[in-house]
Amino acid sequence: MKAVKDRFSALANNLGSSAVRDILKLTQGKDILSLAGGLPAESFFPVDALREAYAKVFEHGGAALQYGLTEGLTSLREQLASQMSEDGIVAQADQIIMTTGSQQSIDLIAKILLDPGDHILVESPTYLAALQVFQSYRACPTMVDTDEYGMLPDDLEAKIIRHRPKFIYVIPTFSNPSGQVWSIERRASVVELCRKHGVLIVEDDPYGKLNFHQQKYPSLYSLDQQFGGSGNVLYTSTFSKMVAPALRSGWVVGDLEIIRVIAKAKQAADLHSSLIDQRALSELLDSFDLKAHIARVSAEYHNRLLKLTDLIKSRQWEGIDWVEPQGGMFMWVQLPEHIQADVLLRHAVEAGVAFVPGQVFYPDGSGTNRIRVNFTHTDPGLLPEAVERLDRALRQYAAAGVLQP
Amino acid sequence: MKAVKDRFSALANNLGSSAVRDILKLTQGKDILSLAGGLPAESFFPVDALREAYAKVFEHGGAALQYGLTEGLTSLREQLASQMSEDGIVAQADQIIMTTGSQQSIDLIAKILLDPGDHILVESPTYLAALQVFQSYRACPTMVDTDEYGMLPDDLEAKIIRHRPKFIYVIPTFSNPSGQVWSIERRASVVELCRKHGVLIVEDDPYGKLNFHQQKYPSLYSLDQQFGGSGNVLYTSTFSKMVAPALRSGWVVGDLEIIRVIAKAKQAADLHSSLIDQRALSELLDSFDLKAHIARVSAEYHNRLLKLTDLIKSRQWEGIDWVEPQGGMFMWVQLPEHIQADVLLRHAVEAGVAFVPGQVFYPDGSGTNRIRVNFTHTDPGLLPEAVERLDRALRQYAAAGVLQP
Repeated sequence: MKAVKDRFSALANNLGSSAVRDILKLTQGKDILSLAGGLPAESFFPVDALREAYAKVFEHGGAALQYGLTEGLTSLREQLASQMSEDGIVAQADQIIMTTGSQQSIDLIAKILLDPGDHILVESPTYLAALQVFQSYRACPTMVDTDEYGMLPDDLEAKIIRHRPKFIYVIPTFSNPSGQVWSIERRASVVELCRKHGVLIVEDDPYGKLNFHQQKYPSLYSLDQQFGGSGNVLYTSTFSKMVAPALRSGWVVGDLEIIRVIAKAKQAADLHSSLIDQRALSELLDSFDLKAHIARVSAEYHNRLLKLTDLIKSRQWEGIDWVEPQGGMFMWVQLPEHIQADVLLRHAVEAGVAFVPGQVFYPDGSGTNRIRVNFTHTDPGLLPEAVERLDRALRQYAAAGVLQP
Repeated sequence: MKAVKDRFSALANNLGSSAVRDILKLTQGKDILSLAGGLPAESFFPVDALREAYAKVFEHGGAALQYGLTEGLTSLREQLASQMSEDGIVAQADQIIMTTGSQQSIDLIAKILLDPGDHILVESPTYLAALQVFQSYRACPTMVDTDEYGMLPDDLEAKIIRHRPKFIYVIPTFSNPSGQVWSIERRASVVELCRKHGVLIVEDDPYGKLNFHQQKYPSLYSLDQQFGGSGNVLYTSTFSKMVAPALRSGWVVGDLEIIRVIAKAKQAADLHSSLIDQRALSELLDSFDLKAHIARVSAEYHNRLLKLTDLIKSRQWEGIDWVEPQGGMFMWVQLPEHIQADVLLRHAVEAGVAFVPGQVFYPDGSGTNRIRVNFTHTDPGLLPEAVERLDRALRQYAAAGVLQP
């Protein structure tokens, strides 16, 4: 047998392990209330509607179960085009590729665009599993300074000029991990800057529909179109949070030239995604009021967030702060400067609760006193106990002093 | 906008387009009987059993629709481990990863093993879409001389020594495109040689169960285990031909160290494959006699092959020859030396029939007077007309002389 480093490709040697997965391992076999995962609430999945939708697929006989187009089911892509047009995203069905979740959209985009040493720009903080994809292709992600309204245009422009990035990767609406939403002004500035410098934007929008208030936020894709439509934005989203993750059905939409190359990469990667899931989704979109469903789920998630924040506020933990999310699935909590989140996690797991330490969301390992807290998955009846356990972890941390993880 | 070559990665620029896909474009909107695609017969898909299996998935409520393990559904992997053990493949469930068809197994294996410039060895001819994957990672495939019993051991050893390949990629049972099956002796020789030189074998087995006779062929994986189990073989297969392609459910099994790296790559690529399809397959394996189903399908495919070969023999085309396949989905037809298959295809499409010209299955573009003919997809009642059209194409080829495609 060869040495491990010799045996595997450079890409394999640059694949990080998932911090969330490592946390799950820590918690295995223990009675843990996990606020770590990015999981939607199972009790709200539209099980009956899905059962009916899948049953309809089989009414079409064997022909429905044959190989299909790499790009995905045409009728589903047409439905998506129509649905997205209500949000100002004007695209033809052939500008859309169905993917195995938006994770695959990110991987395929990185695969067709990034060579080792290429630069990209990301928010600070940003989605862990996207960072891991970019690093596996040995690209160099640089963080752009970000405030509560989004990326700072001055810093973005300076870093575009300095790094000539292949693209910028952003989650402008209810971000993972920060839960924040970019202001409309900031969206417009970033789109304009990227147009000016010919830099592609990869807009990841898995959470945008989980909107707790009336305020609507235009996608960067739609703003780019309003400004003249240079095809400068690739937009990706998923049904994982709107319907259910097990379907692994996401999509990417963008400039036809890029989409065609993504299709070639997808064909080599897996020919196409599950067509049964795509057919069932198409049936679901025909017969089920997905908008009303998403409104119900969003209202419930908002209630859970309010309950959790009330519980945390009532503890009056010193030095703990957050910006209240307007949607999505995550609270991004600032701890007092002297608390190291990864050490706190050890105490938390001992106490029976888990979260994700912030530093995994920064390519430079900063954010050591931040934590990401998911508020959508834990049963609301268990949130008081989860907060009680967090309290115990904080007290144990204070008692133990700073120990090394 | 940047120039196309600047914009895309080296990988993207090395993604070939699919010859089969290009042929399908040629045939669009025409009345074509296609013997080109590698499609199973739709009329034999177990639609009723699948309908019931999917219905059962939804009896488990929302929890069944949540995110799952990257490696795939544990119960399905346990069923697969048990099923494979009947074929001499002894593996634990944690040595198996469920993939989006065996195409994804091939892509992930290539991704974690191949750096640009790495050598690999392949059969002559071999599966087009695997070649395209290897070339996208800029590996150098070298053909090993192959006769009707499989790879020639002397040539294999010489090329192992010369090229120090990362792996050899083979389809020993009812190959695509050749339809051939390796002899047991040849299997043993190749496994021994690869063990001796520490070269990994990637054994692709999508067609092995489509067996027209009683003769059984041990997988290279099982032989490696019989010889002492060095973990030197990665074995991949799929339900696409045994159940239906739309489920996009394949798997790869092998050495745990390699499987763990594949899992990391898969997590970055798409988190996991459709869990609804995996749950339905698990239900199907519990309640449906898949073996009897595969026996019925194989018998029908054998009948179609016999019908097609009878029709071709009755034409007495001069200089046309083939080895009769013992299973699988393809006939690999040798044309007279003066006939160029790609030119013949133009005439064939004019006449209303399609096949795949042989040269796409060779990395060096040889095989210009070979064609791959699929016998599983076309309705048997249409085979006489398909052969009539082939006859017309051959006559038109002879009348036109050799023209450039």
